[in-house]
Amino acid sequence: MKKAIVLLSGGLDSATILYMAKADGFRPHGLIFDYGQRHNKEIDHARRIARAAKCAYEVVTFSLPWQGSSLLDKRKKLPVRKTIKPTEIPSTYVPARNIIFLSFAMSYAEAVKADAVYIGANAIDYSGYPDCRPDFMRAYESAARKGMKAGVQGRSIKIHAPLIKMTKADIIRAGIELGVPYQHTWSCYRGLKRPCGICDSCVLRAKGFAAAGYADPALEAS
Amino acid sequence: MKKAIVLLSGGLDSATILYMAKADGFRPHGLIFDYGQRHNKEIDHARRIARAAKCAYEVVTFSLPWQGSSLLDKRKKLPVRKTIKPTEIPSTYVPARNIIFLSFAMSYAEAVKADAVYIGANAIDYSGYPDCRPDFMRAYESAARKGMKAGVQGRSIKIHAPLIKMTKADIIRAGIELGVPYQHTWSCYRGLKRPCGICDSCVLRAKGFAAAGYADPALEAS
Repeated sequence: MKKAIVLLSGGLDSATILYMAKADGFRPHGLIFDYGQRHNKEIDHARRIARAAKCAYEVVTFSLPWQGSSLLDKRKKLPVRKTIKPTEIPSTYVPARNIIFLSFAMSYAEAVKADAVYIGANAIDYSGYPDCRPDFMRAYESAARKGMKAGVQGRSIKIHAPLIKMTKADIIRAGIELGVPYQHTWSCYRGLKRPCGICDSCVLRAKGFAAAGYADPALEAS
Repeated sequence: MKKAIVLLSGGLDSATILYMAKADGFRPHGLIFDYGQRHNKEIDHARRIARAAKCAYEVVTFSLPWQGSSLLDKRKKLPVRKTIKPTEIPSTYVPARNIIFLSFAMSYAEAVKADAVYIGANAIDYSGYPDCRPDFMRAYESAARKGMKAGVQGRSIKIHAPLIKMTKADIIRAGIELGVPYQHTWSCYRGLKRPCGICDSCVLRAKGFAAAGYADPALEAS
């Protein structure tokens, strides 16, 4: 059975791609990052999702001493949806984050001889993040092929970003079809007991469930 | 003054590029990695070199749970020069290591608004490492430009690999010209009190100093 590395954040996008990788016939290996996020909730939820899917996983810990993003730095104010202009790069942007995530995924893929990496990047809801765009993904895949033992030996590792052009509602509909346990996912930028409901990420999620025509099982569960 | 991120390993190649970046007119910011190397000697030496060059630096710590390389895993035997075939990828290869290093460098570069990244990759002495080759460097630079805020806003970060086609002897000659304090560098794969003299890295270094026509100041100092 072919293997795929799946980047798991604890959110609904990455939970969905885990089930998509399985549906595509891969045995998934989850990769979870602990890099000083504002709270541990997303890491806990990523582990829960991996366990629910009976998926092996590794947690990579790293430090980013120059962190300046509001996702990492508790002193910075989180953006709420109305303050972000559509063309602006939000303050939650972590410099080169997907580049770092993909690099670890490539290393893991080579170590376990995986054929693919799944990343939940989305170019519609996160249009301001340049590392969520299709042309970046293709360019990165090509660079990695040139720089890795697997690539130069003719076995290249394909990057799958199946959500890249999907709306949140489409993602949720596809995930419900695949049986994704959305009650185990966490999207809120804050680490309170329940999702705050007002941060950028909560608003996107709520709109997505509303547009898909489903109730959010995480709100029912909490 | 323009800034450059310089990847510092504690070895002679990276010490040389630090002085090359200075000679090129950049204010260098050192980037040192602590990722479970066999010994801490190289990290200590990287700090010494940064201090000697009056260069600011950051240490990034990360874990690589799937480590299988002999550079990281003490149970694996280190290769000695005669056992490596010229076209073989040595067991000291860490999956996607330069890809991971460059990703952190790009993140740091964006955070401090640096214009360049210097990496001591060498395609001659390390011909077996695919991530030391020029076409990988160009492909990676191009991917990063597409995936980063700096790149999409028109300020791209250039990757300099000035040693990529130089022999060890050429590197040493250039470094001595620039006043690189080679007595502070450490090349040996082992973490003993003195360099072992027989590992792949010690042999390359000794040959380099001999061919350049200099005595190795690190051997005199130890």
